[in-house]
Amino acid sequence: MHLPHLPAALAVALGLLALPALADTPKPTPTAKELLAASKPEEWRTPDPSNLLYMQLPQGRVVIELAPDFTPLHAANIRTLAREHYFDGLAIIRVQDNFVTQWGDPNDDDSGDTSKLKPLGSAKATLPPEYTRTIDPRLPWTPLPDGDVYAPKVGFSEGFPAARDPSSGREWLTHCYGMVGVARNVPPDSGNGSSLYVVIGQAPRGLDRNLAIAGRVIEGMPYLSGLPRGTGALGFYDKAEQRVPILSVKLAADLPPAQREPLQVLRTDSATFAAIVEAKRNRRDTFYTVPAGKIDLCSIDIPTRTLAAKP
Amino acid sequence: MHLPHLPAALAVALGLLALPALADTPKPTPTAKELLAASKPEEWRTPDPSNLLYMQLPQGRVVIELAPDFTPLHAANIRTLAREHYFDGLAIIRVQDNFVTQWGDPNDDDSGDTSKLKPLGSAKATLPPEYTRTIDPRLPWTPLPDGDVYAPKVGFSEGFPAARDPSSGREWLTHCYGMVGVARNVPPDSGNGSSLYVVIGQAPRGLDRNLAIAGRVIEGMPYLSGLPRGTGALGFYDKAEQRVPILSVKLAADLPPAQREPLQVLRTDSATFAAIVEAKRNRRDTFYTVPAGKIDLCSIDIPTRTLAAKP
Repeated sequence: MHLPHLPAALAVALGLLALPALADTPKPTPTAKELLAASKPEEWRTPDPSNLLYMQLPQGRVVIELAPDFTPLHAANIRTLAREHYFDGLAIIRVQDNFVTQWGDPNDDDSGDTSKLKPLGSAKATLPPEYTRTIDPRLPWTPLPDGDVYAPKVGFSEGFPAARDPSSGREWLTHCYGMVGVARNVPPDSGNGSSLYVVIGQAPRGLDRNLAIAGRVIEGMPYLSGLPRGTGALGFYDKAEQRVPILSVKLAADLPPAQREPLQVLRTDSATFAAIVEAKRNRRDTFYTVPAGKIDLCSIDIPTRTLAAKP
Repeated sequence: MHLPHLPAALAVALGLLALPALADTPKPTPTAKELLAASKPEEWRTPDPSNLLYMQLPQGRVVIELAPDFTPLHAANIRTLAREHYFDGLAIIRVQDNFVTQWGDPNDDDSGDTSKLKPLGSAKATLPPEYTRTIDPRLPWTPLPDGDVYAPKVGFSEGFPAARDPSSGREWLTHCYGMVGVARNVPPDSGNGSSLYVVIGQAPRGLDRNLAIAGRVIEGMPYLSGLPRGTGALGFYDKAEQRVPILSVKLAADLPPAQREPLQVLRTDSATFAAIVEAKRNRRDTFYTVPAGKIDLCSIDIPTRTLAAKP
């Protein structure tokens, strides 16, 4: 009894739902596995290595893609922090159930004592908020058809879930599962990327437009989501030994090409991505009796793949 | 740098957001802590002990409230299974990231070999699906104002998130974080409650109306969500030693009253619950620059409390 089945993008990729159609039922929609197998090479993109962070934890590697088209100043600051080894030796300090996992300097404890804080080096201590940006018609925009509770328009832009408000002319990244945000204090310019969080539960969309989103985890989410929850206030770990050490955070661009992961992400403006979204909106395999006919922004997984090393 | 703040219902309960309003900003909405402190005793309900499952894991106790008004046959079967100690000695066998944690008989591996399965005792092996029910005007219904991507109407009924379709006259429980569903095979009547799953990620609302929902975890979610993700297909644990043993599942009603937890749940049709929802829709503390003005069904936490033991 191995059900419920997982989301189509992954479940069917495993071939488990590719059951034959019954004679009197509609033909099943193609599975994500079938759709991905038929995808064209140009539907995949290789993220710019200057936008990829490799965060090494004891359990494995987390890969984060920065979003400089939405938060350029934060991307630049985080690149500086990574290049100057700011994150190396810091830790995951907070895991709050159904909310966020956060990492940074364990001595940044709001006590007011800044003497123990790791210096930011040449990175900036404050940054303009970058919570929203002017809609740029040159950026790709793949709208979703089913509406949204929070925003007038939602869709994908360059591989990131995003929202738009045409009346104000603004767009912004959204707090979906796996999105990486910039922690801050009360002043809106107090975030600088030295402390980051990732969404590990139901999308806290109320945070949208109130925090800068730096990017998205594209590999290794289970290392961040499958951690014991902190039992201190706000999910902070009470004891130092509960923290997960960050061995290093490096920019892929700073590594020799041979050491970079051959990771690709399906373009969110590709026909195959559209077909996968449609297959998930209306599942017609034998397990499902009622296709939803709808999908919400944060329920869509963006496929990634690792290219096999050439012999 | 201890932000983002957690959802209002919990964050402000800790008092951390109860900052003074600036002179030129709108008066902050009351915090959830303030609202809960001012709640009336009759706004809280003590769940019927015949609807409460205590699932004891090595790490701690999980409490599940069954939903017999929506899935009465499943509630009855699960009560039978618990009373006959069916679950004792079984295990958590699957943790799929951003989807579900599932428990049941580790030997139920779809191999077709049923000889090793634990007998169901006097519980039924198949049940009518109970995926939806006729809207019952006698059941409480607290609608939400902001719409929903998946269903014509959403709200709360007796402490559970639910959806309604007035045109078909049907209502159903929804797959929000913490909701407990009934695993099944392909035949719709193949679920019986012997294997259950709980949502641990973005609400997989596409499962709504395709699986029976037995209830909701009201205490102990971190013991189910904060587990290492399975690396087998569909997130199943590859190795027996990765599984988390279930020490016992008991019905609270079968325990002496002194051994029952004095757990209460805020009524979802109470004025205090409505005020908490409104406070989360429009946060006006100093941290937030843009109140969302909206909230989706699965982003609302339902407060619980443990009554202090009387001296």
